[in-house]
This record gives sequence, C-alpha cells and structure tokens, in this order.
Amino acid sequence: MVEIRYDVLGIGNAIVDVLATTEDSFLVEQDMAKGAMTLIDAERAEQLYAAMAAGTESSGGSAANTVAGVAALGRRACFVGKVADDQLGQVFAHDIRAVGVDFLSDPATGGAPTARCLINVTPDAMRTMNTFLGACVELGPEDVDEDQIAASAITYLEGYLWDPPGAKEAFMKAMGAARAADRKVALSLSDGFCVDRHREEFLDLVEHHVDILFANEDEIKSLYETDEFDTAMQAAREHCEIAALTRSEKGAVIVSGDEVHVIDAEPVARVVDTTGAGDIYAAGFLTGLAEGRGLRDCGHMAGIGAAEVISHMGARPEADLKALMKEKLS
Amino acid sequence: MVEIRYDVLGIGNAIVDVLATTEDSFLVEQDMAKGAMTLIDAERAEQLYAAMAAGTESSGGSAANTVAGVAALGRRACFVGKVADDQLGQVFAHDIRAVGVDFLSDPATGGAPTARCLINVTPDAMRTMNTFLGACVELGPEDVDEDQIAASAITYLEGYLWDPPGAKEAFMKAMGAARAADRKVALSLSDGFCVDRHREEFLDLVEHHVDILFANEDEIKSLYETDEFDTAMQAAREHCEIAALTRSEKGAVIVSGDEVHVIDAEPVARVVDTTGAGDIYAAGFLTGLAEGRGLRDCGHMAGIGAAEVISHMGARPEADLKALMKEKLS
Repeated sequence: MVEIRYDVLGIGNAIVDVLATTEDSFLVEQDMAKGAMTLIDAERAEQLYAAMAAGTESSGGSAANTVAGVAALGRRACFVGKVADDQLGQVFAHDIRAVGVDFLSDPATGGAPTARCLINVTPDAMRTMNTFLGACVELGPEDVDEDQIAASAITYLEGYLWDPPGAKEAFMKAMGAARAADRKVALSLSDGFCVDRHREEFLDLVEHHVDILFANEDEIKSLYETDEFDTAMQAAREHCEIAALTRSEKGAVIVSGDEVHVIDAEPVARVVDTTGAGDIYAAGFLTGLAEGRGLRDCGHMAGIGAAEVISHMGARPEADLKALMKEKLS
Repeated sequence: MVEIRYDVLGIGNAIVDVLATTEDSFLVEQDMAKGAMTLIDAERAEQLYAAMAAGTESSGGSAANTVAGVAALGRRACFVGKVADDQLGQVFAHDIRAVGVDFLSDPATGGAPTARCLINVTPDAMRTMNTFLGACVELGPEDVDEDQIAASAITYLEGYLWDPPGAKEAFMKAMGAARAADRKVALSLSDGFCVDRHREEFLDLVEHHVDILFANEDEIKSLYETDEFDTAMQAAREHCEIAALTRSEKGAVIVSGDEVHVIDAEPVARVVDTTGAGDIYAAGFLTGLAEGRGLRDCGHMAGIGAAEVISHMGARPEADLKALMKEKLS
C-alpha cells in the first residue's frame, strides 16, 4: 500500500465568490430561489452582476473551501479543480496555496473564464447563490491522478461535480481509484436542487460507494424523498459507514452503525453570512477523523468551524482555526 | 455658468485592493515601510502576492473610495480613472457604478492589467500598502472632460496622481478647468512618502491652487517639513480656504481663516483595519459641504464615516452610511 501523502484530497468546482449584501426584494425581482445554488450561463451572469450591489471577491468552491479548512487546521490537503488562465484563476490558485493546500491542476486556456458564484446575502444571513461554471466544465478524468488518490486517506467529492459532465467523469474515476486503493470516499450532497437533478445517481453512490456522507436536512430529505428527517437519517445510517447530517441552528446528528450522536450547534453571537458553513463543517469533521478522534469530537470540531465561518462574510475562515479548536476543545 | 451635475468629481488611480491579515514579522521579512504606500513593479507584485496570505479582493483607490462614499451618502458623484479591459477592471467598474457613481472613463486595452494594491493588515489594524499601478499609467489629460469639471461643484484630486506622469497632466488639466469655471478644487495629500516625492510641487499646489485640503498629521508635517503639528496647521490655514487635518485617534482639526474646530474622534468598539479611513473621512466632509453644512458638522460627518470604515476589513463602507449619519447626527 502506498504511503499516505494527504489526509484529504478534495475534488470540486474551482470558483471565485462575488459576495454582496442585499434585501429580500432583490431576490424576488431577480426571480431567485432563496438559499439555493442555481446554475446560470454567461449572459445571465453578466446581467445579474450588473444588477447586484458592490461586492467583494474571495476564493470559494465547496470542496475547495473544505480542503482549505483542513489545511488551516494543520492537516495535509490537496485540491483538484479547474480554473482558467485569468486573473480570477490566479486569485483562486493563490488563496488555496497560501493556506497550504497542494493545488496541482493546470489552468484551462483559451476557453471560458474562471467560474464565479454570485452570492447575495440577505439580512437574515442566508446566502443565495448563482453560479456560472466557466472553466469548471473543462475538468475531466485526465485531471485525476490515481496515484495521488491512492496516497490520500480520504477523497472528498462535492455533489456539484455532477453538473458539468466532464467533472462527473473525474468524480467517478477518483472514486474508483480510492476504492481500488482501499481508501475512504466522502461525499457532500451540496444542495437540495442539486440532489433533485441527480437523485437516482446520488442514491446509487450513497448506497454502494460512499463511506462518509455530509448532507444538510434539506438535502438528505430530498435524497430519500421524505418529509421526515428521522426517516432520512435511518436510511443514511444503513447506507454509509458515517453520515454527518446538519440541521443549522438545531445542530447535527452523526450516525455510524449503532452509534448516534446528537450535537448542539455552537453558539454564535451574530450570524452574518451562512456561505461556506457546510464546507467548513466538513473540514472540521474530516480533520477530526484524520487526528483519529471519536465521532463526537469530530462533530464538535465541525460545529466550531461552521460557527466561525457564519460569523462573518465569506466562505473561508478568518480566525486562526487551529487556535480556535485548541481553545474550544480544551 | 453651467448647471451643477455633480457635487463631487474625483480623479484618481483606479485600483483593486487585495487585503490579507498578517503579522508584523511578515512586513519585516518583506522589508516594507509599515503604514505607508509603496509603489512596486509587476515583478515585485507577483513575488509579494505569492508570499502573502490568502486574501479578499475589493475595489479601492483613494479618490475612488471617496466618491463611492459621497454617492453612498446620497450626493451626485463622478469618477475619472483608468482600469484595463480585464476581470479586475470589470470588478472596479461594477462596484463604483453599483454604488451610484458615474464612471465614464474608457478602459485601457492591450497594455498593463488593472492596478492592484496589496494590503497587509497587522494585528494593530494598521494597513501597509504596496501598489502596482498597472493601467493607471494610461490615464492622461485626454480622459479629463472640461465640461464635466465645469459641471462639478468640487473637483477632488488625490496626491497619488503625481506618481504616474500622464495622471499628473490630467490632474493639472482638471485643476485648471475647475478654476476657470470658478469651481472648488480639493486635494488629499495621500501619503507621507508621496509628499516626500513631490513636496515642491505639492507646496505650490497648496499655496496657489487648492481650496480644500485633506491631510493627516504625518503628511502635513512632511509638507511643511516640521515636527510640530501646530506649525504645519498654521501654514495650511494661511494657504487654503479649508484644511481638514486628521490625527487618527486624536480626532481632527479643521481650519478655515479665523475658524478652528477641534473635533474628537468617533468612538469605535474595535479598530480592525484602517484602510480607507482618510478616504471616507473626505467623503463625509465633502458631503457635508454639498449639503451646505457648517464646518463642524462636516467634520463630524467625516469622523462618523471614518469610524465605520475602520471597524471592518476593506476600504469601502459596509454599513448604510446615510442611515448611520441620520442616527449619529440627530
């Protein structure tokens, strides 16, 4: 068996976030599905950006946020994803490397620009996302190095990868390589609408291929087409080795065989922007696993990370996560 | 006399800020002048960016921040400055227009990219800036429309414009047009090192051409080559119709002929990042003038704006400035 080089290798859409605050009326005017991630084309992206308030740009992407969190927590992480050879691509590559993640994927040239996610944050701290996938459609199986996967304890995949067809192939190749090397596969279901788009295939993944599942309440209920969280939880428990199911301010439930942990949400003085909450939750959880901790501790670390990221604008942690964990876990 | 179309027309370097938090040791390693704005070339910008922590991008530029503040406060504002036809240029143009500023300057094509300012914020909230001027060197007198200047009550210029030669010519043309139309000229001295670079010419401007002068303590002392704030203040008082001299936590002194106002700093719960403090100070002050207020009120509005912008990362206000003024001035 090859030596472990990374605790977590993440594959995801490489995205720069454009964050602005807005009122709910703007979501209505723009006919947006509040709280969701909607895919948009270049023309709609231009039109929507022109209508949006002044914002700030910061590196995002679901799995990218997660591995950035894992690296910030001191574990070895790697990212596979596709930016374009442009300014926003440079920003993305800089930020993920600056936090200590190995980012080896070559940028795409001559095609669509780096993906951006237009994020409107309403006064209730809810984020509504419109994503132009841009260069992410160039990600393909050729970007997945099976040796790297084999050298990674956990391969972490985002459900969003199923939107661009080439990325889905990359996903399947990575999953196969991880299984062949007897490594763990983790999946985040990403978004309720994303689950709607790919339910049959996601069900097959969860039933047969995924060891560690991350989902929020909406997503897991959508996956199993039930209105009852408990029903969905019981199903996930049968299918995956570990399922970490988040319920916003109600905390999270972690199930693994006969083990069940109901963990309260970390208190937050003021919730400012929920962008990235699930991503950093996963980062805390996976870091806990990498450190050999029990599930309860993993869930606690996950919640501490999520609480930090929702206390400010933007999807990447601002505080020193390592110091924060040390303080809160002691 | 032509009708007033803008309360404030600002001319400045059109810059996108890259903001990251860091420790003082990084400034030492990188041999930076703490608190200052240092000009850097493309190669140094690349090297420094690679060494910097993960950051966020947001529109900046001194005069641009000021007119953005004026527009946020509900007055009519216009900006003249040069971005490139690239992604960061689109970000800059979007953000300044989104806040209500008329930005009519054509982007430069085929040359250097949009300017960026690499800003490292230390734990004491001090910002240290390294600016790659990029496309700003393309700004020239041809970008200044004399009719627009004549239709602007105040033409606001940043001292930083004296760094790129073409921008200096644009500055001189705008100042001449404003004086010919019997409009006011306002100048910000920008930075102590910038004053060092151009002291003789700045002295001539202040003595003969500028109606409203903005400077912090360092800058005004550097201009008059004195260690005594009081000496510098007396000189400025003789030379300009109005001088607004800021002293960080010691507040500000506003002098105009026989009128002197010593105004305490607004209280701030926690100073996070001083980037843009002077720019939004000027925005509040100029807005007060546009509203026909007395100097004391102008100074108060200036201080309220500055206090908002130093309470968070980034140079542009996050709060609803208009609502804030209404609350604090009542």
